[in-house]
Amino acid sequence: MSKAFRTTVVLVAALCAASPVAADEGMWMPQQIPDLAPRLAQLGFTGDAKMWADLTGFPMNAVISLGGCSASFISPDGLIATNHHCVQGSLQYNSTPEKNLIVDGYLARTREEELSNGPGSRVWVTVAVNDVTDAITGKLAPKLTDRQRYDAIERRIKERTAACEKDGLRCRVASFFEGLKYYEIAQMEISDVRLVYAPPQGIGNYGGETDNWQWPRHTGDFSFYRAYVGKDGKPAAYSKDNVPFRPKHFLKVSPKGASPGELIFVAGYPGRTQRHETFAEVKERTEWGFPRYVRRNREMIAILEEVTKGSKELAIKAEPRMRGLQNGMKKNEGVLAGLVKGGILARKEEKQKALEAWIAADPVRQKEFGPALAGLAEMQAESEKTREKDAVFGALYMSSPLLSTANQLYRLSLERPKKDLDRDPSFQERNQARIKEGLERMERSYDNRLDRPMLRYVLHEAAALPAGQRIEPLDTLVGFAAGMPKEEAAKKVETFLDALYAGTRLPEKEFRLSLFDATTKAIVDTNDTAVKLAVALHPMAEAAREREKATEGKRSRLRPVYMRALLAQAGGLVAPDANSTLRVTFGRVMGVDPRDGMRYLPQTTLQGVLDKHTGEGEFDAPDGLLEAAKALRAGKKTPYFDEKLGDVPVDFMSDVDTTGGNSGSAVLNAKGELVGLLFDGTLETVASDFLFDTEKTRSIQVDSRYLLWVWDAVEGAKNLLDEVGIR
Amino acid sequence: MSKAFRTTVVLVAALCAASPVAADEGMWMPQQIPDLAPRLAQLGFTGDAKMWADLTGFPMNAVISLGGCSASFISPDGLIATNHHCVQGSLQYNSTPEKNLIVDGYLARTREEELSNGPGSRVWVTVAVNDVTDAITGKLAPKLTDRQRYDAIERRIKERTAACEKDGLRCRVASFFEGLKYYEIAQMEISDVRLVYAPPQGIGNYGGETDNWQWPRHTGDFSFYRAYVGKDGKPAAYSKDNVPFRPKHFLKVSPKGASPGELIFVAGYPGRTQRHETFAEVKERTEWGFPRYVRRNREMIAILEEVTKGSKELAIKAEPRMRGLQNGMKKNEGVLAGLVKGGILARKEEKQKALEAWIAADPVRQKEFGPALAGLAEMQAESEKTREKDAVFGALYMSSPLLSTANQLYRLSLERPKKDLDRDPSFQERNQARIKEGLERMERSYDNRLDRPMLRYVLHEAAALPAGQRIEPLDTLVGFAAGMPKEEAAKKVETFLDALYAGTRLPEKEFRLSLFDATTKAIVDTNDTAVKLAVALHPMAEAAREREKATEGKRSRLRPVYMRALLAQAGGLVAPDANSTLRVTFGRVMGVDPRDGMRYLPQTTLQGVLDKHTGEGEFDAPDGLLEAAKALRAGKKTPYFDEKLGDVPVDFMSDVDTTGGNSGSAVLNAKGELVGLLFDGTLETVASDFLFDTEKTRSIQVDSRYLLWVWDAVEGAKNLLDEVGIR
Repeated sequence: MSKAFRTTVVLVAALCAASPVAADEGMWMPQQIPDLAPRLAQLGFTGDAKMWADLTGFPMNAVISLGGCSASFISPDGLIATNHHCVQGSLQYNSTPEKNLIVDGYLARTREEELSNGPGSRVWVTVAVNDVTDAITGKLAPKLTDRQRYDAIERRIKERTAACEKDGLRCRVASFFEGLKYYEIAQMEISDVRLVYAPPQGIGNYGGETDNWQWPRHTGDFSFYRAYVGKDGKPAAYSKDNVPFRPKHFLKVSPKGASPGELIFVAGYPGRTQRHETFAEVKERTEWGFPRYVRRNREMIAILEEVTKGSKELAIKAEPRMRGLQNGMKKNEGVLAGLVKGGILARKEEKQKALEAWIAADPVRQKEFGPALAGLAEMQAESEKTREKDAVFGALYMSSPLLSTANQLYRLSLERPKKDLDRDPSFQERNQARIKEGLERMERSYDNRLDRPMLRYVLHEAAALPAGQRIEPLDTLVGFAAGMPKEEAAKKVETFLDALYAGTRLPEKEFRLSLFDATTKAIVDTNDTAVKLAVALHPMAEAAREREKATEGKRSRLRPVYMRALLAQAGGLVAPDANSTLRVTFGRVMGVDPRDGMRYLPQTTLQGVLDKHTGEGEFDAPDGLLEAAKALRAGKKTPYFDEKLGDVPVDFMSDVDTTGGNSGSAVLNAKGELVGLLFDGTLETVASDFLFDTEKTRSIQVDSRYLLWVWDAVEGAKNLLDEVGIR
Repeated sequence: MSKAFRTTVVLVAALCAASPVAADEGMWMPQQIPDLAPRLAQLGFTGDAKMWADLTGFPMNAVISLGGCSASFISPDGLIATNHHCVQGSLQYNSTPEKNLIVDGYLARTREEELSNGPGSRVWVTVAVNDVTDAITGKLAPKLTDRQRYDAIERRIKERTAACEKDGLRCRVASFFEGLKYYEIAQMEISDVRLVYAPPQGIGNYGGETDNWQWPRHTGDFSFYRAYVGKDGKPAAYSKDNVPFRPKHFLKVSPKGASPGELIFVAGYPGRTQRHETFAEVKERTEWGFPRYVRRNREMIAILEEVTKGSKELAIKAEPRMRGLQNGMKKNEGVLAGLVKGGILARKEEKQKALEAWIAADPVRQKEFGPALAGLAEMQAESEKTREKDAVFGALYMSSPLLSTANQLYRLSLERPKKDLDRDPSFQERNQARIKEGLERMERSYDNRLDRPMLRYVLHEAAALPAGQRIEPLDTLVGFAAGMPKEEAAKKVETFLDALYAGTRLPEKEFRLSLFDATTKAIVDTNDTAVKLAVALHPMAEAAREREKATEGKRSRLRPVYMRALLAQAGGLVAPDANSTLRVTFGRVMGVDPRDGMRYLPQTTLQGVLDKHTGEGEFDAPDGLLEAAKALRAGKKTPYFDEKLGDVPVDFMSDVDTTGGNSGSAVLNAKGELVGLLFDGTLETVASDFLFDTEKTRSIQVDSRYLLWVWDAVEGAKNLLDEVGIR
């Protein structure tokens, strides 16, 4: 850690002044934790803080990534604990209209019964993290244009990555502190991952959308995978001859759970925070980005609900997308509320003004930081000019897996002839297997009947763009013109879509896969209508990528300067924004007063599950749980009973600092035992992604005692209890 | 108090065993309070418990009734404190389409500016309560038929009442303990009541229907009347020469409010509880009555919303009815939830079984109580046979003020020729002034456009009644027949209603009043269509009343026996069910855990008002309040600031035992000072009307500091602060 990032004296002084109930900001890099030893001691930690910094030791080596979710090894045979909402892809992959695992859940009582997650499922185990800042941004010629600077950095990253990736390792060079620092992260990549246990929806997603982001919460959001490797112990594609992976370290599942006031650590892979964005950037999100996002999600949800009505098959195919849309909408409504009513945007403005005043107060600072701030403001203003068009153009690909697949195949064919190091990183050799798996996996979720209404939605948006911000290739292909009456445009869209879906064979798996290593000519010669659309849009997409590279090159000059100003102004130990790399956060089990006159208690109990049970929809606890609860009430003993609560605990709150991507994170006590799994935050505090709210920020975890009780009393899953060493 | 109702030893033993946070059941008759002195001492009361039993002394003499609401005198000049939702009639009466006091509120800065509430507004001051059980049910010949028994009791009550009512007193003989006891209550009746202050809707009804029955609450539900009397100090009709009434006692408004844990007393007029109903009775309400009530209210609200859309005038006219429908719906949804999910019905069943077992265990008890229980069960079963028809028939009159007015005038003409003591009590001389005032007051709320859709609703219900439960006069008049297709019936209803509203002059005030003392012949000769409808329905209504009198006579034999069984089984001091007579309940300021994982804190603050403010609809705090809050935040001092809360308090919760009718009740501290006004309960506990829930029952009060702060900082109402002796 460079000196620039720590001034322990300042930190400790600040901490002592802080209210004892104020939450600590910080999704810390593991190597920062030893510097936080004084604060940990204050919170009652008596261990060696260095234990959290050793990525190859216990417990950090057991903390893994599923890509978008976090997880951990909890047995010597590679049993993995994560959230129920993180295994939806596997449940969908293994479901049929007759047997819906999303609803019923699944328990493998033997190894043989474990179900392959299908292609594309991965587990990554972080094995090393190295500071490579010098190698990436050191000695870059100052006279490089922004565009050249971008290329230089991209090439250095590609070279480093290539050198690192051997022996089955997957490597990534990630930017920290707005590009001020770069770290190379090496991960072992395991690709044979199988479903071991997911509870029924009435436990794993109990409360559904209604309770999502809410407290009091009663969701048993846990599920279990197992990692498999070849007989030689090395990662290998799925084979029935593969054997369970034996991790160097695994977490012991604690039968004691966590109690109010207890110090906990959460280790996982938080996705993205924007705490170091400028005020102008957050303001635009608040005034334009989030309202637009929420409106669009709401409309798309309504469309998907209409389309899937009455069809189990379509509903299963649409499930992950639907869940994503709903989750995103609710979260971003919460973020907006926090930014506006919660005053986060106003505080952000104050902070920006304070930074500007601090810079203005000193000519040296003015010279060092002034131009960067002005440059960032200019970039932001520039980007706002074409934001409507840019957003709609990007949404075309997002809306239609058909179009994005055609585009991917076409671009793949254009990139393949190049030398690997010259290719766009997405199309380098290292990513080809995943692309192919994606083409196979698409089978499970793709349907013209889902694709068409989503693409139609964006085409209507494109039709409505103002003159000067038109997507010309669409005007030509579909026959749009600026200012065209809605009804006329809608008719043209239908004519276009009729032809598109009638003339494409990409929904056929064999055809799709046959184009995976085809030449550009062969692909174009298919005359496939989806390919034609992708080809027609390609020049505009290329131009957008070119512009973005130049912008990114400029950003790579300005943002580190801005970050240095922030660090210098703040002093003290600062955590970098989340970037999907391994982080550790710590805090205590505690409730909160979310609003005037109300308190969230730190724990919920089985009784709450029963109280919410209606037998319908999102509050339909399975019979097995109801019977087990009845037996418990009738006096049956369980080791997972909490005497103080007088019940089996379900979920708990804590003031740890987490965000999306932390789902499934291991929640550890001071001894490194697994006391729960993190799965959510509260809606009141999602705006903390933009500025940490020390008063109200809370995360939501499921207590390890609930999952053990479900295994024991509801499922009778002796095999799993045995495996984690209980009884 | 008879020995039958107290066994202090048992009581104290039970209290000591109880958890310290369990709420005490009991809407006590004031004369019962001295027997509760041990419990009061336990709660820290050091005064003389007898102070609560003296109805002519301080503070009880200051506690008054508005009929449906409670209130209290708070100045030597007859200033009255009650709830904002209790003065809606006055606000409506004084509103015009141009000046809507319901929305804007009203402050009289001088006596001259005080507005008459109009005819029908009353204040009742209880001056004496006497046990008259012997006079009412003593020495009734056992051989009387049920019907004769009813007449005998009714006549005795009428005679007692007539003897009691002199010197402007209003008297009532009320049944307590299911008819086991009767008390005569004498009240002074003041009929010149004027509006002094009501806050804007954005304070007085802040949160509206959304927050109704909810916590956290931020409603400033207070308003103020003044009682006026003739210059001789005696009650008199409104006259500008009248002078403020000078009550013997009034309450001092405390500038200290109430704090968590503090012992408080609530004195008021709770309307009705049914804690002594049988299980079969509560079961029928749960399975038939409440679901039907909730459904009908929801449908009627939708109809009224549709009808009043776009018309300020109609909206003002419909306001009290709308508020009643909404309030009733929400409350009864809560009651249903409590009965079913909350387990109140199941506990009621247990209690019934325990009672039956207790009776079965002893031949003497079997003989004494057995037949009464069997008789009540039989009566209940009998009443269920015709409940659909009976309910729809009653709803006809409830739905249409036009029909009920025609019916009232017709019956009045039939009763007038009789001797006063022989009349139906509703039409005795003592009630004639109120009837006349009602005919005048109707002007403010009546409109054919509101009457017709409500009557239509019930006519459709009548059309759908099964054969054997038909309302024959309607079949004849409207042309219904059992099993008639809906559309056909609907057409007939419209034809009937067209004729009804075209042919009636009752909506005209002068015409209505001209019939007040008309003969039956004169009334029938008007050929008014509403009168014709009333006359046609009259024989059926009379038959229903006859049946009900016989039933009531039977009930008056059986229920006291059942009540004696309950008392004997329970032992100890028991409060009778609420019956709109003066009661005292006590408890402590405290929050509650309403459901798993959540706590309601005992107080809310001004900050909560600001947090909820959206500037729209139900959360639109007036500018004056927002500015006063701003000034407060900017450092302006106020004596109503709570240091512990760090803000001005708004509302608080307590575990006192209250119900509808308690609205506006004085909340007193141990010294008898007014520390707040009760205005609501929580939805989680409204089922306590059927069986008291000692764990969750909570009432909601507005803190006296909030009303003083609003007077002071928002309204600048120096005249009111001066009058209550602040500054």
